[in-house]
Amino acid sequence: MNAEIITIGDEILIGQIVDTNSVYIAEQLNLIGINVYQKTAISDNRRHIIESIDRAFVTSDILMVTGGLGPTNDDITKQVLAEYFGAGCMKIHEPSLEIVKNLIQRLNITLSETNIRQAELPDCCIPILNKNGTAPAMWFNRNGKILVAMPGVPFEMKAIMNDVIPMICKHFKLKSIYHKTLLTYGIPESVLSEKISEWENNLPKHLHLAYLPNPESGVRLRISAYNGESKQTLEQEVDAQFATLRTILKTAVYGENNDNLATATGKLLQQKGAMLATAESCTGGHIADMICSNSGASKCFVGSVVAYSNNIKIKTLGVNATDIEMYGAVSEQVVRQMAQGVCKALNADYAIATSGIAGPDGGTAEKPVGTVWIAVATPKRVIAQKYILSKLRDVNISRASAIALNMLRLELIEEKD
Amino acid sequence: MNAEIITIGDEILIGQIVDTNSVYIAEQLNLIGINVYQKTAISDNRRHIIESIDRAFVTSDILMVTGGLGPTNDDITKQVLAEYFGAGCMKIHEPSLEIVKNLIQRLNITLSETNIRQAELPDCCIPILNKNGTAPAMWFNRNGKILVAMPGVPFEMKAIMNDVIPMICKHFKLKSIYHKTLLTYGIPESVLSEKISEWENNLPKHLHLAYLPNPESGVRLRISAYNGESKQTLEQEVDAQFATLRTILKTAVYGENNDNLATATGKLLQQKGAMLATAESCTGGHIADMICSNSGASKCFVGSVVAYSNNIKIKTLGVNATDIEMYGAVSEQVVRQMAQGVCKALNADYAIATSGIAGPDGGTAEKPVGTVWIAVATPKRVIAQKYILSKLRDVNISRASAIALNMLRLELIEEKD
Repeated sequence: MNAEIITIGDEILIGQIVDTNSVYIAEQLNLIGINVYQKTAISDNRRHIIESIDRAFVTSDILMVTGGLGPTNDDITKQVLAEYFGAGCMKIHEPSLEIVKNLIQRLNITLSETNIRQAELPDCCIPILNKNGTAPAMWFNRNGKILVAMPGVPFEMKAIMNDVIPMICKHFKLKSIYHKTLLTYGIPESVLSEKISEWENNLPKHLHLAYLPNPESGVRLRISAYNGESKQTLEQEVDAQFATLRTILKTAVYGENNDNLATATGKLLQQKGAMLATAESCTGGHIADMICSNSGASKCFVGSVVAYSNNIKIKTLGVNATDIEMYGAVSEQVVRQMAQGVCKALNADYAIATSGIAGPDGGTAEKPVGTVWIAVATPKRVIAQKYILSKLRDVNISRASAIALNMLRLELIEEKD
Repeated sequence: MNAEIITIGDEILIGQIVDTNSVYIAEQLNLIGINVYQKTAISDNRRHIIESIDRAFVTSDILMVTGGLGPTNDDITKQVLAEYFGAGCMKIHEPSLEIVKNLIQRLNITLSETNIRQAELPDCCIPILNKNGTAPAMWFNRNGKILVAMPGVPFEMKAIMNDVIPMICKHFKLKSIYHKTLLTYGIPESVLSEKISEWENNLPKHLHLAYLPNPESGVRLRISAYNGESKQTLEQEVDAQFATLRTILKTAVYGENNDNLATATGKLLQQKGAMLATAESCTGGHIADMICSNSGASKCFVGSVVAYSNNIKIKTLGVNATDIEMYGAVSEQVVRQMAQGVCKALNADYAIATSGIAGPDGGTAEKPVGTVWIAVATPKRVIAQKYILSKLRDVNISRASAIALNMLRLELIEEKD
């Protein structure tokens, strides 16, 4: 079954914003086994909207439309859809009006005609509540095919999609489907695919494997299971396959589904009741930021010293000044002392330290841009490793951060064994 | 003049990657005065590609195509375009073959048939060198209209666009155009537009104003100047208009074009020869990361203490333990001491400190999720301010970081006056 995602609004066309809505919608449709045939972004133009819907209905059963539902004059999606689907009239949708009233009240504004009109919907649509905004969503039927129109504000759209996905499954009587993702780090995609080719070739036909590579989070392997007897059976089958995969990929597997390198490492630390600190030079706080962006980070993370100046490396982290002079700040000697020093200074059990030349300036023949030393200190030992990454500052910072977290993760696993 | 951007490849349709290529292309076309009529994402399917090109040529003069130029079997864009534009044969493009050979040599791999085929192009296209990858770009002419096909790897595409934009300007004899962007922070878009409405209404017709709002970087105001006598005249006109705008918006203006809050603040610090440190609790290193993501950060930034645990606030930053107990870690008393403490600990002249409840847990009736205290310490005084932001952890972290940098920026300006 095919779907098309149509995004309406100028912001996308002038390159002002990155369209993450259609990514989310495509992912959600994909998860229930629907193929996204095309994505289209168009402006708030009546003829263009109508032509696009006409064209999309030829190839797709499901049209997901976002944007153009705001209260201003340039937003015309609702009117055009009313016309397209032959609405008799516009009708106030009382539950939506209630939400509008509540939102307006909270802002201490008096309810205007414009506000009320937000809750007016074509009489030929099935209204879908927008609990987080003033523009309700609409479901239109047409010869067994459907069009769903949603507001373009990402968090409003996402909450609505939660309700729409089950409606789509019911309407099209979709078969049960189950997904699970295994997260790996440290093995390039091409090597990974060779390693698991025998396992992959023996997968039963109703289990589909997808490779989802990402330079910062490694390669994710997703199995989608279709046509099973029950969700439970599918779940058991996928779990059994992933169990085999884990024996092949071993410690390269760091988690499942929504885990990330920071949460995976955090879990291992929590199992030990241990606390982590970071000492960051070239990564400039990026590792701390990656850790703290997850809620509950305080259970295993005490904090970080971003030691951008050599003075802080010496004074706060206790790095030997002579070593900085002799070997340079980007050296094995210094990064090891940074890791040990931050453990002591912040009273942590484990530490990560980074020192490198992020670029674009500061490279030399001996230490080109992209040279990074990473150290991990544990209660038992300190390990350090040199990497030559890229010429690009942002790539160097994010890759060094991911590698550093993964180094700690592998060390924590090795200790366990 | 209209353009359409066509993205070919499954990654976009399954929601695996966020499409930033089309954002960049749209922005670049917009900057030379070309209207992007539609963006379309389709799969590697011959019929679908041909239908989309046919449809796009009806409404647009310029078709920008990315993706599907790789060496694997699923990449068919080059073959389909050769067929579509009636190529006589495929011909090796020698300068591209040289690049392929060099890239392969660097990887220590022997040159394969597949590698050589990457440098083969339809004889009816104008080749465009891809200096950073193995797939060259192609320019096709058709009744005065054009199609440009580029590889989908973002940094390869961007380098190619640098060459393509002047070719488009020349081909369509585009009039000279000039852009400049003024960056503002702290005034909401609706208030801003009222403040400058008189100025905006008096803008000469050939100067176009665009509002580009972004929650993390404020509202950017871009003037595009068309139809001028010369680039120099346009530049002078825009500069004069922005000079007036600066007198209206005063210190809300923090920079131009590619500046950001961190670089703008850094410039002010450098003018004083002063160094900055940050003490971050709820922002968890995000401010340090924002600063260090700009090259040259070390000229005004010594480092940061990410004080996630109270212990570090007390031991490393010298916050009074009794105050933490009495007022809580999220309080004016504590955040002020954090700012002063990090100045002392890291030997900095200025400091920013944050302490708040990022969420989703940890909120109370008195201090709900989103409560953030921010302090700025200068050689003369310490100021502190409370904000109630949102319920979302990532929004709270990034907004608190931007507000904190802006607080410091305003304080630095006030000192100057």
